[in-house]
Parts: sequence; structure tokens; C-alpha cells
Amino acid sequence: MDNLSLLVDLYELTMAECYFHYKKDTLATFDLFVRALPINRSYLVAAGLEDILNYIKRLEFSKEDINYLRSKKIFSDGFLKYLSKFKFKGDTWALPEGTIFFADEPVVRVTASIIEAQIIESFLLNTINLQTMIASKASRVVSAVKEKRVYDFSLRRTHGSDAGVKAARSSYIAGFSGTSNVLAAKLYKIPVVGTMAHSFVMSFKHELDSFLAYSNTFAEDAILLVDTYDTRKGIENAIDTGLYLKAKRHCLQGIRLDSGNIISLSKLARRMLDKAGLKFVRIFASGNLDEFKIRQMLQAGAPVDSFGVGTNMGTSIDAPSLDVIYKISEVTDEDGKFMPTMKLSKGKVTYPGRKQIFRIKDKKGRFVKDVLGLEKEKINAIPLLIKVVEKGKIIYKFPSLDKIRRRLTENLRRMPDRLEEVCSRYKYPVVVSLQLRKLRRTLARQLGKRQ
Amino acid sequence: MDNLSLLVDLYELTMAECYFHYKKDTLATFDLFVRALPINRSYLVAAGLEDILNYIKRLEFSKEDINYLRSKKIFSDGFLKYLSKFKFKGDTWALPEGTIFFADEPVVRVTASIIEAQIIESFLLNTINLQTMIASKASRVVSAVKEKRVYDFSLRRTHGSDAGVKAARSSYIAGFSGTSNVLAAKLYKIPVVGTMAHSFVMSFKHELDSFLAYSNTFAEDAILLVDTYDTRKGIENAIDTGLYLKAKRHCLQGIRLDSGNIISLSKLARRMLDKAGLKFVRIFASGNLDEFKIRQMLQAGAPVDSFGVGTNMGTSIDAPSLDVIYKISEVTDEDGKFMPTMKLSKGKVTYPGRKQIFRIKDKKGRFVKDVLGLEKEKINAIPLLIKVVEKGKIIYKFPSLDKIRRRLTENLRRMPDRLEEVCSRYKYPVVVSLQLRKLRRTLARQLGKRQ
Repeated sequence: MDNLSLLVDLYELTMAECYFHYKKDTLATFDLFVRALPINRSYLVAAGLEDILNYIKRLEFSKEDINYLRSKKIFSDGFLKYLSKFKFKGDTWALPEGTIFFADEPVVRVTASIIEAQIIESFLLNTINLQTMIASKASRVVSAVKEKRVYDFSLRRTHGSDAGVKAARSSYIAGFSGTSNVLAAKLYKIPVVGTMAHSFVMSFKHELDSFLAYSNTFAEDAILLVDTYDTRKGIENAIDTGLYLKAKRHCLQGIRLDSGNIISLSKLARRMLDKAGLKFVRIFASGNLDEFKIRQMLQAGAPVDSFGVGTNMGTSIDAPSLDVIYKISEVTDEDGKFMPTMKLSKGKVTYPGRKQIFRIKDKKGRFVKDVLGLEKEKINAIPLLIKVVEKGKIIYKFPSLDKIRRRLTENLRRMPDRLEEVCSRYKYPVVVSLQLRKLRRTLARQLGKRQ
Repeated sequence: MDNLSLLVDLYELTMAECYFHYKKDTLATFDLFVRALPINRSYLVAAGLEDILNYIKRLEFSKEDINYLRSKKIFSDGFLKYLSKFKFKGDTWALPEGTIFFADEPVVRVTASIIEAQIIESFLLNTINLQTMIASKASRVVSAVKEKRVYDFSLRRTHGSDAGVKAARSSYIAGFSGTSNVLAAKLYKIPVVGTMAHSFVMSFKHELDSFLAYSNTFAEDAILLVDTYDTRKGIENAIDTGLYLKAKRHCLQGIRLDSGNIISLSKLARRMLDKAGLKFVRIFASGNLDEFKIRQMLQAGAPVDSFGVGTNMGTSIDAPSLDVIYKISEVTDEDGKFMPTMKLSKGKVTYPGRKQIFRIKDKKGRFVKDVLGLEKEKINAIPLLIKVVEKGKIIYKFPSLDKIRRRLTENLRRMPDRLEEVCSRYKYPVVVSLQLRKLRRTLARQLGKRQ
């Protein structure tokens, strides 16, 4: 699956064939953006740019690809020859990963030959959809855990292998402390963590035997799963194990609660552990957790130190897709001059022209509003889109994941606090500039005549 | 990403290290099953076995993998040496892809050394979760479209590249007629389809120019998107194009409606097309469709011939994960004798022992109920789990996708009709055999003593 050039909707290629005959030299600009914030989201976290740039850099059609396309008997020899030499040679602007953004704001903006810009559409949408969706969901979980730690346990229920590793990367960007996914940890140099499964406990004759075996093997790294049979007795066995380790001058790292009422069980466990002189033993919670449940637990004073969050984060379960689209905003005419364009479909009207997002700060450096305007407008604000590809060449130095994490933290710190509430109804103001509104109005009138 | 051996939760490996020291020769049986049917599902469609078997066959740890694991400083040299020679040498039973199944019924059953059975857990869960979830959702869409056609348009919003190709494969198993995803079409020999995007229409000065250009390029293969500006005028332009093609002795294949009220627009389009002598031009509908909307359209008499279904199917949007789990059901004791085991966690109790699903038919060959029993029970019914791996060797001949499709169709034909209703409240009877219930009761009492 390393060659992803055919990971493309057929219509990108049929349109390209047609462009090849009619509009080979036409240039166009496309915006990739999210039409509306999904349920429960007051902001989105840009993620996926690194994969997009690697894709753009490597994109070419192999002999095997071309042969497959030829076998479909819908493409001309001329176009297939063109494809066999295809390279992306256009420009790309994008939001750096970790940037907070909102509906209608371009995440990626592509200006290239219309064929090139069109062919990369499917991959760009797929990539931004997945990684931004996960980073945005995970950021909510991180807000909910506050100063506690949270780990990605989603691999078993993410949508396939690609989503598995990207969930680990995207949640790490959002502030997760690590992942259970070994491959992702290796690929992205993320801390990797693990405890034990119920099957492990069940494979021993007695629960205590399983705890002792694990602790003898991992000493300081043991987190004991205490809910396989009866949780209270499980905690007692964990205490016995903790005392056994203590006698050997080792510290039991923690216990894990994975079912039942975590609020009361964690309080019980804390009391029992403390009473036994095991104050240092931490309490991990897992089992179908999300930002809502975690907030509820912490508000109820559950003494949980770390959380494992899986399915609900790794599938973005309440919003398992973003309304991400890729729309043409300008195209060159016969004279090679860029002309703005827009879509008028019912309920799906877009913004024309080459746009920029301007983020306005107050005197204290806090973000107060965004202006979606035309690139050339002079607005006293931070322009968010930066150039990352110039004439097909990547001119962007990939930041480390830790730098991306810090960018998000910094972004959130400057945003209004209400944005981060788990049940936020706060809508960060994004306004459309006067010039852009004017252009849109004028153009809507003109475009009626295109039919 | 071709080497997926590290696509594993760390705890599988830490448990394996511990087993390596304490239980190297212990054998165990694990069941992979879905704890409860998700919302809106009255049945599930088994999918993912082919990938699992290829994974089991190829699974080994490369030098690079071992070096990475060594760098974590949690594994012993002895265990890493063992891993470097690791091969799966156990047995596997499974439901053939395309088989209908229900909650609590094992989809895959593994009997192997406890280390081997544990290490494959993460991949097995991830694979069955994704592909079964999609096939099950897609099967509902196929039921809703009845004799019409439906195509997979989900690539842009599936969770990554792996999910993209698997959504195409799984929906094809479920009865979809093809996909827009070129890579999936190539990998799985699935028909590939495509129309045009709004950007294509917008890149021309006049909508009609874009239709003519596309039709000149593809003649019989043109499906014109008519809703970029005003849909009624779009249909008129499509009619002009259809008449132009007709004069050249070509048939316009169709028009596509992607927004607005598809019911009234498709009726309008049909009338306009028929009146213009273009009865043969088909109407395609797309745009955020699912089984509920399609049923509604067809019940309202919308003359749509084919549907494109994307996000809602490709993310299984109403149920973006299955409650799929992998639980130990028996383990050998010191004498090498298999002893049944089970989990007692609150609300998560499992069934012990080596199990089989028995599907009972009536005299007409229709399925009337399933019995979840112990493998050795004599029940006059079809046993659904078949042996696919023996001592690490694949003994299963992969059926073609078309054969898998036919299996599902045949399964559905024999099931009670109500199962296929879009809003079915029907619950197909799955009962637990007397012997299995007895074993569970006895064991629950004994296991209390394990703590």
C-alpha cells in the first residue's frame, strides 16, 4: 500500500482526461475546508499536513498504475502518457498542524494546473478528515483530564491500520501522553504504554498468582488489572502484591479499573491502598471513556491519576467524519488571468477567490476574532495560512510532534477559555471581510448567467 | 506499512514476556465476538477473514522490530530471541466472510500457545471491527435500494487509506455494484465508477460547455452533474447535451443530483428527460445518503436509478465501532489439560469453553434459530465455524468476492424477512445450549475462589 497514487476517486482522473483535452494549461485554486463544525465541537485542530506533503512529493504513476488504467478502456493514450510523467508542480498553502481553526476557514489551499489540483483531491480530503477529526476529539479529552494524564488505547477499534497509527499521532498532538500502539510509537517516537488484559489474569489459577508473576517480570512497570472477578478482592490482591514488591524495595506502579462504577471504586481503591501504606500506587481508569465521563468522574472527586481512552476518541464516535470539502475558488480564463468562482448549489454556496484567514489579537495577545478575507487584503492580524509547497517543492520544515503539541497548547491558551469547556456553546467569532462579501455578491449575480 | 507485526498493543507483548517466563507451554483458546449488536443493526455480516489469514501467515518480527523493542528496555534477551523466531503455529476457526451472525457468536476462534494467541489479538480485533462494521452497514443500504444499484463513494471521508480500500471491498461483499476508489478497484477487481465534480462545471465559463466537453471526451460514459448552479437549468443543459449526443448516435448515460430535494428534483428530471425523448438517460442520486433516506426516496416514488453512498456507509456513521472483544475461554493446566474459564467483571461476563454456533433450519431450509453451544455437542444443525488454520498453516481456500457476495445473499434469503427491514425491531433468536449454561453456572461458582 506504499504506492498511494491510485488512492483516488475515478472522477478525478476522468475529469483530468477531459481537462487534458480542453484545459491543459488552465490554472486553478482550490480550498480544502470544513463546511460546519460537527456536534459537540467548538473548534478544530489542524492535523495531517505532514502526510499530505509527503504524498505530494512522492506522487507519481507507476507503469503498473498506468497499465491498470489502460485496461479500463476509458483513457486516451495521450493522457496516459501525460500521467506517466505526472508530478505535482503547483503551490500549496496550509495551516501548520496544531493550529486551531473553524468552519469555512481553508486548512489547505492549492494553486496549480487544474489537472494537478484535481488529482490530489481525494487524498487530501481523506487525510485532513481523519487526522483533524481525531486531533479535535482528542483535544477535548485532554481538556477534560486537566492536569492528569491520558493515553491512547484505540488501536483495536480504529478503522483499520492507517487510522490506528494516525489516531496515536493525532492524539499525541492533542496532548495525550502516549499510546498502546507499538507501531505508532516507533514511527512517531511517541511514549508507549501497556498494562495487562483480563485474559492474563484468567490464565492463572489464582488472580494473585497472575499479579505476582507480572510484578516479578516487570517490577516497577506493573499496572495490575483488578476487575476480572470481584473488584474489591482484586484490589486486596493488588495490595498484597504491592507489599510484596515493597519488601523487595520496588514500587508497584498502579492498578487499573476497567468496569463498574469508577467513581466509587477509585475512591475505595485509594482508601484501601493508602491504608496499606501504598500511597504511591496510582489508579488508572479505562473502559469506554470519553471527555464527558472523565469530566463527570473528576467533578465527583474520583482519585484517578491516568486515563486510557480508546474507541470513543479513536473513532471520534460522536462525530465520525468532518464535513470536509475541496472547492474551486478561482480559475484562469483564456488569457491566463485568474477569475474567482463559486458554487451556488442549494445550501452549499462557497466563498470565491484566493483567501487568507486573519486572526486578530487584543492587547494582551489573546485571540478575539478571525476574519476570512482575500489574500491581498491589508488586515492588522496574523495571517494563518503559510506557503508550504512552491512549484512542487516542499519549502516547509516539518516541526517535531512536540513542537506541534506546544503550538496547540499556545493556541488554546490565547483562545477564550469557554472554547475548551466540554459542553461549550461558545462560538468563536469568524467574520467575512467586506471585500470578500462584495465579491461573493457580485459573482453570484454573474454566475446565474453561466447557464 | 507492509510490516504490521508491531501493529499491536504493547500489553500483548508485555504479557507475552511474562508468559514466556511462567507459561511458555500453556495453550489457550480465545473467542473473538461482538458483545452486543449496535444501534439500528439486526444482524452483522462477517468480513475481514482474508486479511486475518494473510496476517497470520506473514507474521514475524524483523531485526528492526526487535531492535526497537530492545530499545524500550522492558524485554528480556531471552524473550526477544524467542520473538525473532516467532511464527503462529496454532489453529484458527472462523465464520466465512459473508456469513450473517449475531451478538455473542464467535467470529474467530483461536487455539494456540497462549503467547501466540495473545500477540495476534490487536490485529484481529482491528480487522474484524472495521470490515464487519462496514459490510453490516452496507448490507442495510443494499436492502434499502432493493433492485436499484448503489456505489461506494466513501474514500474522501473514510478513516484513512486502509479504511478507504476496505470500505470498497466490504461494501462490495454486501452487494454494492462498484466503487469510485481506483486503488480498491484494482486490488479487489471491483467495478470502478465516476462522474464529475462541481469544480469541473465551475472551471468552464458556461455549464453547457462543461457538459459538452465531458460528453465529447467520454461519449457513452458521461454522467452530468446538474446542481452546481440552478438544478432545473442544469437539467435543461443536460437535455441539450443528451440531444447533441443522440444526434451523434451516442447515448448520454445519466445525470447526477447531489443536493436539494432529491424526491421532487428526480421526478422533475424524469419528466423533462422523457419529454425530450431521453427515456434512456438514468438518474443518479448522491449527497449524504444512507439507508433511511434512500428508503424514504423510493417510498415516495423518486425515479432514481442508482445511488452513490459515501460517508454514512464508509464510516458506519450511526455505529462507528462494534463492541468486538477477544476473550480467553479455556487454558491448559499443569498437566496440559484444557480447562474452561470465563470473565466475571460486572456487565462483562463471558461464555467459557470451546464453542460452536449451530444454525437450525426448518423443513423449507429457512433459518429459524442459532444455538451457541460447546463444540462437542451433538445438535442437528449447521455448524458455522470452520477450521481455517491448522498448526499455523492456512487450510482455507479464499473464495472470490463474488462467491462471498452470493453467500450473503443466500444467508439473507434464508433468514426471516423482517431481519432486513431498515427499522427492524426483529431479534433473531440465539439461545445458549443447556450444556453451556450449566458449565457457565458451575464455573462462576468455582472462579469466585480464584481470588
